[in-house]
Amino acid sequence: MSQSPSMNRSIVLQSRPHGAPTDANFSLQESAMPVPQDGQMLLRTLYLSLDPYMRGRMSDAASYAAPVALGATMIGATVARVETSRHPDFSVGELVLGFNGWQDYALSDGTGLRKLAGLAHPSSALGVLGMPGFTAYMGLLDIGQPQAGETVVVAAASGAVGSVVGQIAKLKGCRVVGVAGGAEKCRYVVEELGFDACIDHRSPDFAAQLGAACAKGIDVYFENVGGAVFDAVLPLLNARARVPLCGMIADYNATGLPAGPDRLRVLTRALLTKRIKMQGFIIFDDYGDRYGEFFAQMSQWLSAGKIKFREDIVDGLENAPQAFIGLLEGKNFGKLVIRVGAD
Amino acid sequence: MSQSPSMNRSIVLQSRPHGAPTDANFSLQESAMPVPQDGQMLLRTLYLSLDPYMRGRMSDAASYAAPVALGATMIGATVARVETSRHPDFSVGELVLGFNGWQDYALSDGTGLRKLAGLAHPSSALGVLGMPGFTAYMGLLDIGQPQAGETVVVAAASGAVGSVVGQIAKLKGCRVVGVAGGAEKCRYVVEELGFDACIDHRSPDFAAQLGAACAKGIDVYFENVGGAVFDAVLPLLNARARVPLCGMIADYNATGLPAGPDRLRVLTRALLTKRIKMQGFIIFDDYGDRYGEFFAQMSQWLSAGKIKFREDIVDGLENAPQAFIGLLEGKNFGKLVIRVGAD
Repeated sequence: MSQSPSMNRSIVLQSRPHGAPTDANFSLQESAMPVPQDGQMLLRTLYLSLDPYMRGRMSDAASYAAPVALGATMIGATVARVETSRHPDFSVGELVLGFNGWQDYALSDGTGLRKLAGLAHPSSALGVLGMPGFTAYMGLLDIGQPQAGETVVVAAASGAVGSVVGQIAKLKGCRVVGVAGGAEKCRYVVEELGFDACIDHRSPDFAAQLGAACAKGIDVYFENVGGAVFDAVLPLLNARARVPLCGMIADYNATGLPAGPDRLRVLTRALLTKRIKMQGFIIFDDYGDRYGEFFAQMSQWLSAGKIKFREDIVDGLENAPQAFIGLLEGKNFGKLVIRVGAD
Repeated sequence: MSQSPSMNRSIVLQSRPHGAPTDANFSLQESAMPVPQDGQMLLRTLYLSLDPYMRGRMSDAASYAAPVALGATMIGATVARVETSRHPDFSVGELVLGFNGWQDYALSDGTGLRKLAGLAHPSSALGVLGMPGFTAYMGLLDIGQPQAGETVVVAAASGAVGSVVGQIAKLKGCRVVGVAGGAEKCRYVVEELGFDACIDHRSPDFAAQLGAACAKGIDVYFENVGGAVFDAVLPLLNARARVPLCGMIADYNATGLPAGPDRLRVLTRALLTKRIKMQGFIIFDDYGDRYGEFFAQMSQWLSAGKIKFREDIVDGLENAPQAFIGLLEGKNFGKLVIRVGAD
């Protein structure tokens, strides 16, 4: 299946998952091609970003953003091309970064769109130059405040956020230890991305290996997974450590709290006695006004070859649900992007 | 019993407590009066500060500071008078703030001493003008960053730290809700200190009352108690709330972790989805270089009548253990100080 010039496909939230999402939670629907009015344009999706935060939007638990309604199109960032335009500021053929969701086509009045011109890889606007890269940049530099010689740890180290966190930390002169799932990802993180070490969280002696790789403790832990990785990190945190917190993918599919004992006070006691700063952030809500600064700096690092990135591109909108389910299990290798339409 | 001109009394750590300290953990010892050498002086303790952090020093669990050794004198801040001096910079009769611990006399070479001149209430150097007041000032203003119109909550609101936190927050234009134990303390907090409300944490419907008093949620929670108060505060925290963390007195006597479920992820999820900053601090380690700024500002507020303070003064070094045991149970009303010797 591929994009039709006469019909729109969209993937809607069919039901809310209990635990890990399944195919049954999604439904592919077909509808008439939308028609732009005056001041609108028709956008055709080229690339759709799949990101862990989408799991939260599938649930109706209270969170920082409203959930996707049942029957509504799944939300998501997209790179799209202007197909027809009745908008004075956009011309047919222009590439735009927007938030069209999981569908072939969408109407837009231009609100929230960013024109993409001159990008060597348009899909990078969804990764290293987009939300994940921006998350890595601000969380590490503004909350983490890494100093040369300090030890920085980041999980999901081959992923869209973690890979950028570690590479920026290396540029700042830190010792950088990644955590990833499997030998192949770990090898990539060390050999290609230049981390000092990478520990496989599937190893039975993961915590001991992490401790050995962080002989001087951990000064910055960039938290994007939670779960067992966080448990192993906590006792290794140094006095005055900083813990920027942008996600907890290991917990997203949890259906209840784990059994006791209740370790809440283990965390608060560690924060107190080690004077740790732990701070959650939502990138565009908290740092939206600094996107330009990030984009300029990251573009420079990319063109100088100082930051590398890897994409895991899956063809076909219809494959988005399976790809997303795999993302939550760590099956992707690099930034997961759906190629929805031909360039 | 009172101070002798020929003999020194000290209270030493006899054994480590399991749970709440008891009298048996302390022992009063007598020894020969120490004799200053060249460059030293003999200090006679007038006031000894008793503070919750001392409970941590009685245990040998890893913490931010070394524990008191078994058989060693309990540590603590003191206001003392120079009795005899062989130090060129200190004269007999001068008042000094130091860290002599739980004893009548101590030798000093001047290291770490601060001369106290012109203080209307010398004991206030242990409270509103000392470590507790400084803790309140920096934690609230530097980490908490309260803005006019925001809601600030502080527990142990009639105590040495909480009373100052709330009064500074009022000066900054905040709505201030205290938490204290019992109707008398709550009345004092509202009527004398000027908080907007104060909730008795012993009330069966404490959490509901706190919620009603914080109708617009909580923007700054100054954490100095932990336990059930923190549990009631957590769901009320607003997006971008700040939680300076200087103590958890409710947990200090705990002998193990509470039963499950494990709520660690409840906290980390709240930090993430509400973008909360939670940060522990140890006042002199983290802010020692700003004591002068604090002292000048607080002195001005005191002389202008903008900050009030209350002391709970207990006479006699020998009563320090019982007073300290009571402190951990909230039996004191105001800053707890032992009057060790006549002024």
